[in-house]
Amino acid sequence: MPKDAAVRVLLFSASLRTDSLNTRLARLARSVLEKARATTVDWATMNEFDSPSYNEDVETGAGFPPGPQELHRRLTACDAFVIATPEYNASMPGHLKNAIDWVSRIRPQPFNARHGLLLSASPSMAGGNRGLWSLRMPLEHLGARVFPDMFSLAQAHKAFGEGGGLADGKLAERFEENLRAFLDLVEAAKHYPCIKKAWVEFLGEPGGETVGRVEAA
Amino acid sequence: MPKDAAVRVLLFSASLRTDSLNTRLARLARSVLEKARATTVDWATMNEFDSPSYNEDVETGAGFPPGPQELHRRLTACDAFVIATPEYNASMPGHLKNAIDWVSRIRPQPFNARHGLLLSASPSMAGGNRGLWSLRMPLEHLGARVFPDMFSLAQAHKAFGEGGGLADGKLAERFEENLRAFLDLVEAAKHYPCIKKAWVEFLGEPGGETVGRVEAA
Amino acid sequence: MPKDAAVRVLLFSASLRTDSLNTRLARLARSVLEKARATTVDWATMNEFDSPSYNEDVETGAGFPPGPQELHRRLTACDAFVIATPEYNASMPGHLKNAIDWVSRIRPQPFNARHGLLLSASPSMAGGNRGLWSLRMPLEHLGARVFPDMFSLAQAHKAFGEGGGLADGKLAERFEENLRAFLDLVEAAKHYPCIKKAWVEFLGEPGGETVGRVEAA
Amino acid sequence: MPKDAAVRVLLFSASLRTDSLNTRLARLARSVLEKARATTVDWATMNEFDSPSYNEDVETGAGFPPGPQELHRRLTACDAFVIATPEYNASMPGHLKNAIDWVSRIRPQPFNARHGLLLSASPSMAGGNRGLWSLRMPLEHLGARVFPDMFSLAQAHKAFGEGGGLADGKLAERFEENLRAFLDLVEAAKHYPCIKKAWVEFLGEPGGETVGRVEAA
Repeated sequence: MPKDAAVRVLLFSASLRTDSLNTRLARLARSVLEKARATTVDWATMNEFDSPSYNEDVETGAGFPPGPQELHRRLTACDAFVIATPEYNASMPGHLKNAIDWVSRIRPQPFNARHGLLLSASPSMAGGNRGLWSLRMPLEHLGARVFPDMFSLAQAHKAFGEGGGLADGKLAERFEENLRAFLDLVEAAKHYPCIKKAWVEFLGEPGGETVGRVEAA
Repeated sequence: MPKDAAVRVLLFSASLRTDSLNTRLARLARSVLEKARATTVDWATMNEFDSPSYNEDVETGAGFPPGPQELHRRLTACDAFVIATPEYNASMPGHLKNAIDWVSRIRPQPFNARHGLLLSASPSMAGGNRGLWSLRMPLEHLGARVFPDMFSLAQAHKAFGEGGGLADGKLAERFEENLRAFLDLVEAAKHYPCIKKAWVEFLGEPGGETVGRVEAA
Repeated sequence: MPKDAAVRVLLFSASLRTDSLNTRLARLARSVLEKARATTVDWATMNEFDSPSYNEDVETGAGFPPGPQELHRRLTACDAFVIATPEYNASMPGHLKNAIDWVSRIRPQPFNARHGLLLSASPSMAGGNRGLWSLRMPLEHLGARVFPDMFSLAQAHKAFGEGGGLADGKLAERFEENLRAFLDLVEAAKHYPCIKKAWVEFLGEPGGETVGRVEAA
Repeated sequence: MPKDAAVRVLLFSASLRTDSLNTRLARLARSVLEKARATTVDWATMNEFDSPSYNEDVETGAGFPPGPQELHRRLTACDAFVIATPEYNASMPGHLKNAIDWVSRIRPQPFNARHGLLLSASPSMAGGNRGLWSLRMPLEHLGARVFPDMFSLAQAHKAFGEGGGLADGKLAERFEENLRAFLDLVEAAKHYPCIKKAWVEFLGEPGGETVGRVEAA
């Protein structure tokens, strides 16, 4: 398969702290993805995409901040994205949503028709699952094809072995299968360009425009 | 393309009343799907799948009622499903969820790795969109690949023309594109069998089993 | 305080099976509520409220089935309701939502301005919490004042002691406090009749009517 | 009624832009609240509470930024809060959630047992309602008593009259009633101190701590 047929995946952890369980999970995802046939991983950190709070006046005046511009550029260059994100207060981290809000305003809106996989690590017993569901909604609203299989690593502070892998063998296997199944779908979609056609959630409003709609409100 | 390569789609309206706007929308979807290349539509009605309330004692005793058995049989025979559903009280209809609860207990659990498209028609201005989001969650939990583009027809009592099509030309075009994009994805996935591999939402519980989990509670 | 100032609470488990963990939790709630000052408990079972699938044609023709009529009558006679409900497929049980859909059509719509407390027991580690959140949305849409503190009993198959109480002392105390805090709010609201004024979620639709809106769709 | 028995309400618009429809709605809420008996309004702007992205390393090192500290101080001094917020991409604004994430880490966690009312203005036909529901979940998780009646002003760009009030008389009346019903509940709760007792959503995790849990992940 020629090089240009490779699947390119943007991968980052949404946590800004140094010693993050989600960054560990993202690193593990990286090693799995890099072993896959014909896959190129673009490793990023949330620091590169971080930005001040969304403000339409700033957008109109000074323009887009560097963080959202960088996220837009990296997303556009990839076929798919993988985010490992913590759960904050039973929902997604505000700063991650803020980055998405900014990026949703840049054209072409890059989440549209792009495949995404969501991962989460948490010391809790529910594994950050509620955060992933709240994140899923705006991403799917923006037209992202969020993979139904989300991986929530519960009790993550006890889950990693010495080499950085998952200590539980079955869990490790499940994680790898999850990533591979996602890659298969992304690769399949590359051969069906129609799938990548722009489309977004539609509320039946004649004349309505909801792509990247940070409503002027 | 040989006959057996055709995409088979189960299509039904979740409304039980005769003069339903969602049944009208399902009929319109049927005419669009039947025009598509290599597509076979299995038209069904909610009456065929209707059932009494889920009760584990009944399952263990008398077994599965005819409605859920029929839904399971029809789903299993198809590659994908399309549901047009009303919104009841800002959520999905209880009776549709009840049918899903029953079916989730039959093995193999048929929503797993199956592609689904959700449509809604409503006289309201929001078009039944909240109902679709609440329906999406259990379906995706069960492993269904719910297409990100959901079609919510707002002010549906005024939306249909005489021939049964959408009076607004742009809206009609959008509806057709939505259905075709879905079919393209389903067809693509057929050629990548790995995509159909069983997988479900996982909360990181060692030994946990959440496929078709009507919890014994 | 005169007898008629007592807080009346309708209490039931939404599970239809005999050996239900949620029915056990409801029984425990009953014993706590009955010990509270000036509280009358109306104990019910889901069997009394169960009904066939919502169908507007049936409503218009034969009228409301006995189950929803009974739920309406019992709700109307109480100040508040407490429901212990299982989680089915990461959401509420379909049959419970079906009962709510029916009742939402009877006037006066009885969830409006009525206080509610949601409990859940589940063998899983997340305790049925997602089911409660999905149930909350239609109830609050109908104007119910759902108490923010929901009690989700995780690993419920191991949680009960011999006498039917919670084996873990701290958990038992927490459960009792939760119920008492709810009763306090209900009692407070009785002395402020304005709080009980009809009001429901409003989407800004001029002329819109969303109380008990099982949309004619 | 003595001065100290007054209900104190913190009121702000979550939009950072100058010409915001939500700030207009917040101003209208202010005029209604100030007319109410025994009510003191603390008017704030999102600028006062704005902050960089949550980062546990920053919290541990430099401490809490000024914005979250100010929001904490103002919340703690009030009985209740009213937020008028735009909807961004079918969800809450990321920067508002980011402020909440920070504040949830300061002790005493100030959303706990505090009453809140959520308003939204949007040019869309759904009025920002989905944003309010996504905001509700973390607030209720943190123990806030979010008033069931949320006010979503649809087509807000056409809704305001010259004096800043709502052009539609019925809508204006409904808005005022909504605010008054909220104030009544807050006042009632002041006389029942037990209602204000700390309590939060509980997932049944023995030893679990979820108040202001920005998980160390």
